[in-house]
Amino acid sequence: MNALARLGMVSEFPSENQAMAVSADFAHGAANDAAEPKDYFVERDGMKFAGTHLLVDLWGASRLDDPERIDTALRDAALAAGATILHSHFHHFTPNGGVSGVVVLAESHISIHTWPERGFAALDIFMCGTCDPYESIPVLRAAFAPSEVQVDEQRRGRIA
Amino acid sequence: MNALARLGMVSEFPSENQAMAVSADFAHGAANDAAEPKDYFVERDGMKFAGTHLLVDLWGASRLDDPERIDTALRDAALAAGATILHSHFHHFTPNGGVSGVVVLAESHISIHTWPERGFAALDIFMCGTCDPYESIPVLRAAFAPSEVQVDEQRRGRIA
Repeated sequence: MNALARLGMVSEFPSENQAMAVSADFAHGAANDAAEPKDYFVERDGMKFAGTHLLVDLWGASRLDDPERIDTALRDAALAAGATILHSHFHHFTPNGGVSGVVVLAESHISIHTWPERGFAALDIFMCGTCDPYESIPVLRAAFAPSEVQVDEQRRGRIA
Repeated sequence: MNALARLGMVSEFPSENQAMAVSADFAHGAANDAAEPKDYFVERDGMKFAGTHLLVDLWGASRLDDPERIDTALRDAALAAGATILHSHFHHFTPNGGVSGVVVLAESHISIHTWPERGFAALDIFMCGTCDPYESIPVLRAAFAPSEVQVDEQRRGRIA
């Protein structure tokens, strides 16, 4: 194994390179020195699973029609959770001003879709490894000032 | 309102343009001639909500370490559901060969994260408008030949 592989170097497909970052300990790519294959599933509270997936609904939220602000908020939310940002992409729809976008992480992703006319945004925050997706939520509250936040947790790939 | 806005023209942010497509009737962007603001939520089975979000876990799956094949499969899955592809992005991780990626749609997104060493993939398929995300599942079965498929449906932004 070469040095880049040991560092968890990411190879990208297709040939885009935006906000590229490398982490030595992310969930999909971390290497260790053991001879046996590494297990990239996590163990928590006596359960073994692939990662924590939060479905987060914001109601009564503002600034849902500003893709630049949304990009910044989602990046800040990812960093607050301890995640490594690999790529982000946002679309701004007309005429309603809604925004769809995603931040791809070394530890999975954060997505958002907004309906400004209803003050509603649907996000999902999927993180594996040692990241804590709940740390993203205060950042989202600060960015969008929702009157209500609904969070549903799914543990993906649960095997025990 | 100009002609592009009436067609649901998409403006992109940031300045990327990959697999751009425009649809006249997608959920976020469609316009109508009525004076009142259009309601982009959908009604089905007596419920009103923003969109259908499927969490799809594949077990015993193969070809989970091939980003090009995964990109193709997710695009085919999106088209099967009647969705419009705006952008896709995939990462290939070393050393385990896992792939993370997303297809951003005019109607929301499809994401995937794979753990080839366990034959496991976690997908989510979020679609609003008239798309049927269940139509994506046979495409995923054909592409990855899983021995087991688990599907959990969430109706996001349910208001009645």
